[in-house]
Amino acid sequence: MANPTAAMLVIGDEILSGRTRDTNTHYLAGELTKHGIRLGEVRVVPDERAAIIAAARALSGAYDHVFTSGGIGPTHDDITAECIAAAFDAPIDIREDAHALLRAHYDANGQELNAARLRMARIPEGARLIDNPISAAPGFVLGNVHVMAGVPVIFEAMVASVLPGLTGGPPILSQSLRIDRGEGEIAGPLAALAEDFPDLSIGSYPFMKGAIHGTRIVIRGTQAARIDAAMIRLAALAPEATA
Amino acid sequence: MANPTAAMLVIGDEILSGRTRDTNTHYLAGELTKHGIRLGEVRVVPDERAAIIAAARALSGAYDHVFTSGGIGPTHDDITAECIAAAFDAPIDIREDAHALLRAHYDANGQELNAARLRMARIPEGARLIDNPISAAPGFVLGNVHVMAGVPVIFEAMVASVLPGLTGGPPILSQSLRIDRGEGEIAGPLAALAEDFPDLSIGSYPFMKGAIHGTRIVIRGTQAARIDAAMIRLAALAPEATA
Repeated sequence: MANPTAAMLVIGDEILSGRTRDTNTHYLAGELTKHGIRLGEVRVVPDERAAIIAAARALSGAYDHVFTSGGIGPTHDDITAECIAAAFDAPIDIREDAHALLRAHYDANGQELNAARLRMARIPEGARLIDNPISAAPGFVLGNVHVMAGVPVIFEAMVASVLPGLTGGPPILSQSLRIDRGEGEIAGPLAALAEDFPDLSIGSYPFMKGAIHGTRIVIRGTQAARIDAAMIRLAALAPEATA
Repeated sequence: MANPTAAMLVIGDEILSGRTRDTNTHYLAGELTKHGIRLGEVRVVPDERAAIIAAARALSGAYDHVFTSGGIGPTHDDITAECIAAAFDAPIDIREDAHALLRAHYDANGQELNAARLRMARIPEGARLIDNPISAAPGFVLGNVHVMAGVPVIFEAMVASVLPGLTGGPPILSQSLRIDRGEGEIAGPLAALAEDFPDLSIGSYPFMKGAIHGTRIVIRGTQAARIDAAMIRLAALAPEATA
C-alpha cells in the first residue's frame, strides 16, 4: 500500500517579508511522517486573492490532502476562507454552527461579537468545521483542503484534531548513521547502495562541527527489514561510524 | 519604480520529512527585503527530477529572480544542477573553471578530487559561477535562477556575494505598533485605514503572551511620509499602544 500524499500552503506576507519565521511547516512535516503521510510540496504565498486561489487549486489537484496555515482571523488581511471557497466555486456566508461557537466564546469572555469577529463565522457551503480549543474561531475542511490558523499553538491543536481522522499509510521508518568524513569520500559506494535499494530513500547530509566535515546518512522506507539490510551494507562502508 | 520580485525554491527530502528545519528561506526573506526586492513565493520540493524542473520553470517565468537552496553536493541525491540545466534546455558537463576551483581546494587539503567530488564541477553552459568561500564547490546563475548550497553557512555566504549585483528597488520600510487588545476589537477601523492607504501593506498579527491577547500591526511601504501618516491615524485608534 502506498503512502498518501500531502501539501502545505502557508499564507502570509509576514513570512515572505522575513518578519516572521514559519514554524508550522516543520511541525506538520514531522506529524505527517509519523502518520505515514508523505509531505510532497510546500508553498508560501502572500495575502493576495489570485495567488491563494491558484495555489490551492494546483495543490488540491496534485495531492491527497492539503493543509493551509494563516489568514483566517478577523482583520482585512484575513482572506483565506473566501479564497478557498472561490477555489472550489463554493458559496460562503456566516454559518450558524460557527456563529454559535463564537457567540459562546465571546459571551463567556464578556467581549463583543462585533462585525469583524463575525467574519470568522463565514464558512464555505459543504465544509466541515475544525475545532479550535484556544480561541474558538474554527478552521474547516472543504474537499481535500484543511484550512487552519497561522498562530502556531492553534495550528498545532488543529493538526492534532484532524490527523487521527485521516487514513495514514504504513509508518515511514528511518535509521541514520553519522560518518565523520566528507560526503565526497563515500559518495561512490553510497550511490551503488541507493541503486541496489530503489525502494528506500537514502539521503546524505553534510555537516560541519568545528574542524570535522562529516556526513549524516538517513535511510527511510516502510519495510524495516529492508532498512536493516541497507544499514548493514552502509556500516560496512564506514566501520568507524556512529549511530 | 516598482520593486523587483523573487521566488525561493528549497530542494530536499529532509525538509519535507521534518528531519531538518529550513532556515535559508527566513534568512533570504530578510536580506531581500533590506535590498528592496519582494519575495513573492516560496516552494519546497523533494529530490525528484520532475518536481525540480517544473518548479524551476514556473518560478523562473513568474518572478524576476529565483534562488534555489540544496542539492548541489557530491552524492547521488544531489541532482539540482542537472535539473536546472534541463529546465533551461542547457547542456551540462564538467567545466574547467569549476574544476580548477575544486582541484585547488582538495589539493590544499590533501584530499582526493574523486569522481563524486568532480560532479560538483558540472556547470550548465552559459552559467556564471557563484563563489563558495567555505568549501569551494561553486553555485551558479543560469538565466534568472541562482543555484546555491543548502548548508546554511554556505547559502548565506552565497547570498551575500550575489545580492549586491542585483538591482534592488526602493527600500521596503516598515513601522509597527503593539496593541494589547485582540485584533477583533480594532479590525473595523483597521480595514478603513487599509482602504485609505492602498499603497501600503497593513498587516495585523495576533499574539498571546500569558493572559494578554494582543495584536501587532505592521505597516510596510516604500514612502516614509505615507507610512508616518498611516501610523498617526493608527496611534489615534489605540492611544494605549506601544511601539
